[in-house]
Amino acid sequence: MYIPTYSDVEAAHARIMPYIHRTPVLTSSFLNALTGAELYFKCENFQKAGAFKARGASNAVFGLTDTEAARGVATHSSGNHGLCLSYAAGRRGIPCTVVMPRTAPQAKKDAVKGYGGRVVECEPSTSSREAVFAKVVAETGAEFVHPYNDHRVIAGQGTCSRELNEQVPGLEAVVAPIGGGGMISGTCLTLSTVAPGVKIYAAEPKQADDAARSFRAGHIIADDAPETVADGLKVPLKELTWQFVQKHVTDILTAEEDEIIEAMKLIWKRMKIVMEPSSAVPLATILKNPEIFRGKRVGVIITGGNVDLDKLPWM
Amino acid sequence: MYIPTYSDVEAAHARIMPYIHRTPVLTSSFLNALTGAELYFKCENFQKAGAFKARGASNAVFGLTDTEAARGVATHSSGNHGLCLSYAAGRRGIPCTVVMPRTAPQAKKDAVKGYGGRVVECEPSTSSREAVFAKVVAETGAEFVHPYNDHRVIAGQGTCSRELNEQVPGLEAVVAPIGGGGMISGTCLTLSTVAPGVKIYAAEPKQADDAARSFRAGHIIADDAPETVADGLKVPLKELTWQFVQKHVTDILTAEEDEIIEAMKLIWKRMKIVMEPSSAVPLATILKNPEIFRGKRVGVIITGGNVDLDKLPWM
Repeated sequence: MYIPTYSDVEAAHARIMPYIHRTPVLTSSFLNALTGAELYFKCENFQKAGAFKARGASNAVFGLTDTEAARGVATHSSGNHGLCLSYAAGRRGIPCTVVMPRTAPQAKKDAVKGYGGRVVECEPSTSSREAVFAKVVAETGAEFVHPYNDHRVIAGQGTCSRELNEQVPGLEAVVAPIGGGGMISGTCLTLSTVAPGVKIYAAEPKQADDAARSFRAGHIIADDAPETVADGLKVPLKELTWQFVQKHVTDILTAEEDEIIEAMKLIWKRMKIVMEPSSAVPLATILKNPEIFRGKRVGVIITGGNVDLDKLPWM
Repeated sequence: MYIPTYSDVEAAHARIMPYIHRTPVLTSSFLNALTGAELYFKCENFQKAGAFKARGASNAVFGLTDTEAARGVATHSSGNHGLCLSYAAGRRGIPCTVVMPRTAPQAKKDAVKGYGGRVVECEPSTSSREAVFAKVVAETGAEFVHPYNDHRVIAGQGTCSRELNEQVPGLEAVVAPIGGGGMISGTCLTLSTVAPGVKIYAAEPKQADDAARSFRAGHIIADDAPETVADGLKVPLKELTWQFVQKHVTDILTAEEDEIIEAMKLIWKRMKIVMEPSSAVPLATILKNPEIFRGKRVGVIITGGNVDLDKLPWM
């Protein structure tokens, strides 16, 4: 297992720069007054394809040799990674296949196709997904890009906190959502080198708190299909992301479903930005643990903005 | 009737700079591809108090002498102007009274109070509003700041296109919503001096198209209580704003209700920003009249972001 280093993040940044946005950092005097902290929101909802995952996906796609690239890339994901891999492949002009359960929302399938990707449907079970995915790879020879347990992906995600650290001097803490741990691992990778004094908090839905329990137990605990409104955060840690979580994360904080929805609405209302439920988990945990953050300069990663406007969680 | 000049805009900008944001200009490669134009969205939804009206209100409030200011300011508005006047008065630390119909949403009353303003309720009729407002002014001696038919307000709104013109070199057209005409008048005032070649289009809901009909008739036509989802655009032109519309506007374009809602949803979905139905009217008219804008560099004013998240127009 290759564990990426900060020089991989630097190489990734140089490689993906033409294909990603250096996203803005927004502040809200209302939310600062409410929390007693100075919050700096890194807005990856404005990222290409609407999510930070465009970074890792672009790094994987543009790091391939021409021969590898010609065979295309493939993944299984009904979320932002599938979309972002399709975006990156489209920019390089190579094929991309995304295996998705046939029960996934049509809008998600259309979004992948909108960037030029091919959707192959499987049954909504792990065994079907694995069988269908193996067939796709056997037929195409495509390069598998895992949503997070991949050193190229983690190095790409690490470019986000690299920008944040340049944009906000003197950061004291960063809070990012944790699902599979790709964003948190990239954050750990970068900050442990460029700003080792910054405390890194992972934020997780209480209803899908496998990472928090893993963190306390000292080994990976994976839940079977947890349910949460923060649907980007249902997946478990894997061996590569676990390395970073175990070594560099200060703590994993959790929030209840209603607290996540409340925080999401607060951000939409006061900051006027559209972002996903998963991206609201950090603010929910900050509001719940004010003593940790009061008086501090805190980076908050808004991970994505791909939300179904017809099915908002407060509707 | 004093007609403000560009030097009033310059003075306003220097005066209000500490109290307003220089809002960002956002672009969307998706919307550029869709329209064939280069669209530059000036995001006043990120403005203080969530709307461009913070500019005009701040200019009026901070232009008062100390003696005048001590008596406070007052207006009648159940929309963004009341909120923004309350914001500006709060920053100066002077009283602000907003007369609102008792039937106005509680959230709007609370928002005014949230900035320290006082809400005085009237019956939902013009006669009641005028009687109650006269009483407020008689009792307090407060300075009346009209939502748009006021040279201080128009000069303040003119700072928005002054920034836009600095942020986007080589603009060929600007599209802004038109209700009472405050934003459009400020736009005309600034651009006719600093960039006289830029064409100025006003965008109006077809169901409240009194400005478009006024423009063609050559005199003000005021409708009685038109109904539109773009609720910031129901009010009629007045003599001061009419001067600017008549003299400097290239054309007034209209859009149907469903086109406005569709454009609003498109902006939320692709640009990840929260903005009001009124702010979607410009994009709706651009999508409807592609031949006017194709191949051009077009500024689009997103006027505000104060929307009721529990009552979105597509719910």
